Amino acid sequence: MFAEQFANVRTKSPLIHNITNYVTVNDCANMVLACGASPIMADDAAEVEDITTICGGLNINIGTLNSRTIESMLKAGRKANALGHPVVLDPVGAGASALRTGTAYRLLDEVRFTVIRGNISEVKTLASGAGTTKGVDADVADRVTEENLDGAVAFAKAFAAKTGAVVAITGAIDIVADGAKAYCIRNGHPMMSAITGTGCQLSALTAAFITANPGQPLEAAAAAVCAMGLAGEIAHARLTPLDGNATYRNYIIDAIYHMTPAQLEEGAKYEVR
Amino acid sequence: MFAEQFANVRTKSPLIHNITNYVTVNDCANMVLACGASPIMADDAAEVEDITTICGGLNINIGTLNSRTIESMLKAGRKANALGHPVVLDPVGAGASALRTGTAYRLLDEVRFTVIRGNISEVKTLASGAGTTKGVDADVADRVTEENLDGAVAFAKAFAAKTGAVVAITGAIDIVADGAKAYCIRNGHPMMSAITGTGCQLSALTAAFITANPGQPLEAAAAAVCAMGLAGEIAHARLTPLDGNATYRNYIIDAIYHMTPAQLEEGAKYEVR
Amino acid sequence: MFAEQFANVRTKSPLIHNITNYVTVNDCANMVLACGASPIMADDAAEVEDITTICGGLNINIGTLNSRTIESMLKAGRKANALGHPVVLDPVGAGASALRTGTAYRLLDEVRFTVIRGNISEVKTLASGAGTTKGVDADVADRVTEENLDGAVAFAKAFAAKTGAVVAITGAIDIVADGAKAYCIRNGHPMMSAITGTGCQLSALTAAFITANPGQPLEAAAAAVCAMGLAGEIAHARLTPLDGNATYRNYIIDAIYHMTPAQLEEGAKYEVR
Repeated sequence: MFAEQFANVRTKSPLIHNITNYVTVNDCANMVLACGASPIMADDAAEVEDITTICGGLNINIGTLNSRTIESMLKAGRKANALGHPVVLDPVGAGASALRTGTAYRLLDEVRFTVIRGNISEVKTLASGAGTTKGVDADVADRVTEENLDGAVAFAKAFAAKTGAVVAITGAIDIVADGAKAYCIRNGHPMMSAITGTGCQLSALTAAFITANPGQPLEAAAAAVCAMGLAGEIAHARLTPLDGNATYRNYIIDAIYHMTPAQLEEGAKYEVR
Repeated sequence: MFAEQFANVRTKSPLIHNITNYVTVNDCANMVLACGASPIMADDAAEVEDITTICGGLNINIGTLNSRTIESMLKAGRKANALGHPVVLDPVGAGASALRTGTAYRLLDEVRFTVIRGNISEVKTLASGAGTTKGVDADVADRVTEENLDGAVAFAKAFAAKTGAVVAITGAIDIVADGAKAYCIRNGHPMMSAITGTGCQLSALTAAFITANPGQPLEAAAAAVCAMGLAGEIAHARLTPLDGNATYRNYIIDAIYHMTPAQLEEGAKYEVR
Repeated sequence: MFAEQFANVRTKSPLIHNITNYVTVNDCANMVLACGASPIMADDAAEVEDITTICGGLNINIGTLNSRTIESMLKAGRKANALGHPVVLDPVGAGASALRTGTAYRLLDEVRFTVIRGNISEVKTLASGAGTTKGVDADVADRVTEENLDGAVAFAKAFAAKTGAVVAITGAIDIVADGAKAYCIRNGHPMMSAITGTGCQLSALTAAFITANPGQPLEAAAAAVCAMGLAGEIAHARLTPLDGNATYRNYIIDAIYHMTPAQLEEGAKYEVR
């Protein structure tokens, strides 16, 4: 069913304001272009309201937050709320430092998010104020598996209901949920975790999808998650024996560039719980 | 005629100081290396004068400007002027926020630029104080076409005469003009607009070309624009069916790396108006 | 003998805190992932102590230092020292500006480094307070050659003895020395200097190696230098006629991703002096 959501991205080509980290920002910009949308990166407090105003959606990623950009995130988020623009939060490393955790809480308090996308550890930190983070990956002990999937789905729905946001928890199995309904997605490839920033890229992609599909944040976010995972599969199938994580990074963006709505429709592997 | 200008870059290997954005900075550095020059990136106000002093040319790009780096741009620009070093301005997103537009004006007021390179929307903003920007691309309504080319050339010449800078307006047709003469360049490929930062890379490349060719800013800038477009053509010809914008990005830099002065001479497509 | 050091990286997968520059940060992160470790980038003074605490090692790179991040480097370095974590210093561009040189001195004064890795010009600046830097490459006049190798080795040992750090001077011939023993390494390919950030990537890789091999900083650093050079050789052998520095950049990371300890053991080219 995700052909329509993707087709809307290609047709409408929304302009997305990204306040994101300097580690993966180039890949995020190329990913947004690959899906047919347009990116603009701007993080100074003196201009974020102007930039958000001319955009259709906002993506906030705290991966390399600092005292200057935290204020920019808050200002941009409030402005986007005032304008009715969709907003994505990527709480990179929440739980890894008091600054990250505290900033994520402050963002949740002061900004209404349309989608919150993180790994299970980050989302647990947001939800509970507890948790540990190993870099920006989920703790092994907290990995979503077939065995604990029902519990994780219930958790995602509960956090979605509490925040009013669609919650996307990504990992080996992805969960995209609102308070009532969850998509469990089995696209992707384990090698994606050997690339820096596939999560960041997905958050930027999600911002494009939800902006092009107003009123359908759950389906649009699930479509973006499926598209990213499917791109990981397509890109992996291209790898020759000497290709490693750097080439794989390029091929994933390439796969989004060439992906058609019909290809996404056919390749998306999900169930509703 | 551009073989000589390119050969000078390879022979002299100028060191270029870049104050640029964090989105495309890595590609800019690799592009400068690809053409045979050397890049150094430094944006702290406490060191930009030192760095500019040891370099041959300066490239100022406002793509992710902030309160800290704006002062650095001004200091570096004034120092480069005092030393007689060529300076490029890339007014990324001028028109998209008051901060960008105001900073671009301030830079024009306080620094003498050798080349100003932007899309038509950005350059119109600089020239007129009016205009809208969709991200960092030109407005469709303001695109330079065969039909409106004479008007655009006249505009470029007028703005060049006003500022004393060579004005490079890039898009489907590129215009590189001083007050008296304009090169209209038809190299390039439409897919280049699906890559973030081809404009930024071109500005960095232009800084290398004008630094290696003192006294010939018009020809050197035109040579850089032709080289970038030709690289886009060469790289596009290499693409296999699964290659998208990420691979294309790499191949464009690769094409500059291998380009010879003779190849540029033969491949450059331009007319003088 | 370096198989063991590399195997420890793959087995232990240390988490590495990087305070690095925004030019090459993405490549550094992918390089750390390629070798089997995990990167986290964080540079705000309010969180660097938290982040360093959850990591096993720290990599400090001054490539785009600024007033905000200099304090972060000092705080993180002191914290890592207090915790007994290994710390790498990459003094990018020391000698090119008073800010860089002064910051490098201040870091050496206030932080105990496990490894200092730079080109000969940078390391000479640290050692002597004199020297010139052409961008981030060594001066030609100061290049380490077969003819002056003994002198360079003596210099490296002397600086290592003075600082208590392993000193890694990289160039056409690499020297990795403590006060008593030096590895002279002849891996690598000249084309590596056409890529921005191979030095930065090596510093990040070195941080992973020394963190996974406590008590063996000399062997671990030498193993990292050999691995990087060998990756440059393997990647170069893959290049097709149209591949340039951008593709080469990806292939070097890919080569680390696929490198086995046995391959490193067999490919490492070094002698002890």
